[in-house]
Amino acid sequence: MPPPFTLLIDPLPADAAPADFSSTFTEVDASAPALRVGELSTQRGDGIFETLGVVDGHAQEVGPHLARLKHSAEICELPIPNLAQWGAAISFAIENLPKSGEFSIKLVLSRGVEAGPAPTAWLHATVAPSYGHVREAGVRVVTLDRGYARGTAEHAPWLLLGAKTLSYAVNMAALREATRRGADDTIFVTSDGYVMEGPTSSVIIRHGDAFATPAPSGAILHGTTQQSLFEHLRGEGHVADYRDISVAELRAVDAAWLVSSVRLAVAVTELDSRAMKTDASTTAAFNRFLMLPRG
Amino acid sequence: MPPPFTLLIDPLPADAAPADFSSTFTEVDASAPALRVGELSTQRGDGIFETLGVVDGHAQEVGPHLARLKHSAEICELPIPNLAQWGAAISFAIENLPKSGEFSIKLVLSRGVEAGPAPTAWLHATVAPSYGHVREAGVRVVTLDRGYARGTAEHAPWLLLGAKTLSYAVNMAALREATRRGADDTIFVTSDGYVMEGPTSSVIIRHGDAFATPAPSGAILHGTTQQSLFEHLRGEGHVADYRDISVAELRAVDAAWLVSSVRLAVAVTELDSRAMKTDASTTAAFNRFLMLPRG
Repeated sequence: MPPPFTLLIDPLPADAAPADFSSTFTEVDASAPALRVGELSTQRGDGIFETLGVVDGHAQEVGPHLARLKHSAEICELPIPNLAQWGAAISFAIENLPKSGEFSIKLVLSRGVEAGPAPTAWLHATVAPSYGHVREAGVRVVTLDRGYARGTAEHAPWLLLGAKTLSYAVNMAALREATRRGADDTIFVTSDGYVMEGPTSSVIIRHGDAFATPAPSGAILHGTTQQSLFEHLRGEGHVADYRDISVAELRAVDAAWLVSSVRLAVAVTELDSRAMKTDASTTAAFNRFLMLPRG
Repeated sequence: MPPPFTLLIDPLPADAAPADFSSTFTEVDASAPALRVGELSTQRGDGIFETLGVVDGHAQEVGPHLARLKHSAEICELPIPNLAQWGAAISFAIENLPKSGEFSIKLVLSRGVEAGPAPTAWLHATVAPSYGHVREAGVRVVTLDRGYARGTAEHAPWLLLGAKTLSYAVNMAALREATRRGADDTIFVTSDGYVMEGPTSSVIIRHGDAFATPAPSGAILHGTTQQSLFEHLRGEGHVADYRDISVAELRAVDAAWLVSSVRLAVAVTELDSRAMKTDASTTAAFNRFLMLPRG
C-alpha cells in the first residue's frame, strides 16, 4: 500500500504478549472516514501522539518515541500503551513503505469515543514534505510568550505541559502568528523570559564549542531528535548541556537550531527580525548524522 | 432519527443565502465512522465548538451560541461560519428530536483535513445526562491554577484564550484532578489569584442582593448561560456586575454557582474542602428560568 496509509490499532493491555500482533491492525483507506464524531480526540483534543521520521526504509528513534508515548500516557492518565504492539505496528508500516525516500509515521492514542469502553489508536504514514531547501536555508523565527512562568508545570501538572497531547491549537496559532510577522517559525518563551521550545521542535544553541538546550522540565517536551544529537555530540567530545537559557542569551549565541523528527535540523537565521549568526557546516553535519539510521 | 444523531455539514461561505440549506446536510449514523484520520480536529485539536441545551423541543440561546462560534472562528482564523446555515442545521436537528426531555446539540467547525481544501463541520445531538440531582445537591469544587497571570490573553492572542477550541485536554485533566481531590468540579484561577471560569462553565457569585461574574477578558469565555441569567437578574432589579473577583473574595461570598448550557445552574457547596454558604431558593429560581424557552 503506497502512502498515505492508515492502520487502525486495537490497543492491547500493556503486558499482553501475543505471538503475532498483526491481527490487531486493520488497514483503512486514508481518504475514507475511519473515526466517529464521538471521538474524544476530535471533541476534546484528548489524546496523545508521536511523529517519527522514516529515512530510506528505517524508522528513526523508535525506542525514544515509544518511551515518550508511554510518558505522555502516564501524564494524561490514559491506559499505558503496549509498546511491543506499537513497535510491531511501526514495523508493519515500514514493510509497506518504499525503501527509499523520507516519510513520516504518526502514532495517535485517543481516549476513545465518549463514554466508550476503550481508547482508539491508529498509525498514519505519509510522504514527508520536501525539507531539503529549509535544511540549507534555515528559518526566520519570532519568540512568542507561552504565558507560563518558569516552574508552572511543576506545581500545576493538570496543565499537561510535559505531554505531547492532541490539543495543539495554540501551537498552530503560534505558527500563524509567526507567518503574520514575516517569519517561518516560533520559539516559545516563558512569561519571565526563558527559552522553552518550538511548537513542533526543540531548541539547541552553540557558544564556541559548547552546545546547550533548555533544561528539561515538566514544561518542555524532551526532544527525541535533540537527545540523539546530544549523545552524538558528547560522543565526539563536545560539551552538550541542559540548562536555563534566557532570551537575552539566545540573541547572542554563535548559532541556534530548531530540531525535530521529520524536518531534522534547521538553522535560526533571524530572531525577532534581527540576523543571527549561523554555522552552515555544523548544520550540514547535524543533518548528515540525522539521516543515518538510528535506533 | 432518535438521538444520538449526526449531521455532516458542507460549510458554505459566510454570505451564501440559498433558499434551502438542507441539501448541505448529510445525516450519518453516529456509531459509524464519519471523519478521516487526517482531520485537524483530531490531529491538532484545531477547530472550535459550541454546546447548546435543548429543553422540550426548544434550542436555548441559539443567537448567542452562533455569535460566539463566529467570535471563536475569528480568533482562530477559521473561515467565518455561515450563521444562517448553522441555524438551519439546528432547526433541522430540533425537528428530529423528541418534543419533551433534555438534549444537547454540539456544533463543531474543524480546520478540515490536513492540506485539504475546506473546513469540516458537523452537528451532533445527544440525550442530555440526567442533571436533576446535581442541580439540587450542588457540586464540591477545587480551585486550580490555570498557569496564566491576569492580562496574559491581551498581550498573547495566539494562546486563543477567548476561543472555544477543541483543544480541551487541559480542561479534562483539571476535572480528573478535581475527582482525585474528592471534588466534582474545578474553578480555574489565574496565577495571581483571580477567579476565571470552570473547564465547562461560568462562575457567578452573590453578595447580599448583588451578583457578579469575572470581568470578561480575552482569557475567559463569555458564557451564554451566564449572560442570559444576568439579563434576567437585571430585569428583576438586581445588580449583576462584571468585575475582578479574587479567590479570597470567592471564599467569602453568600453563594456561588457554576452555570452552563446543559447542566444549567449548580451551587458550589464546598470550595477546596471548606463548606460554602448556599442559597437553595435562588438556585431553584435560576434553574426554573433556565428551563424556560430562551432565544
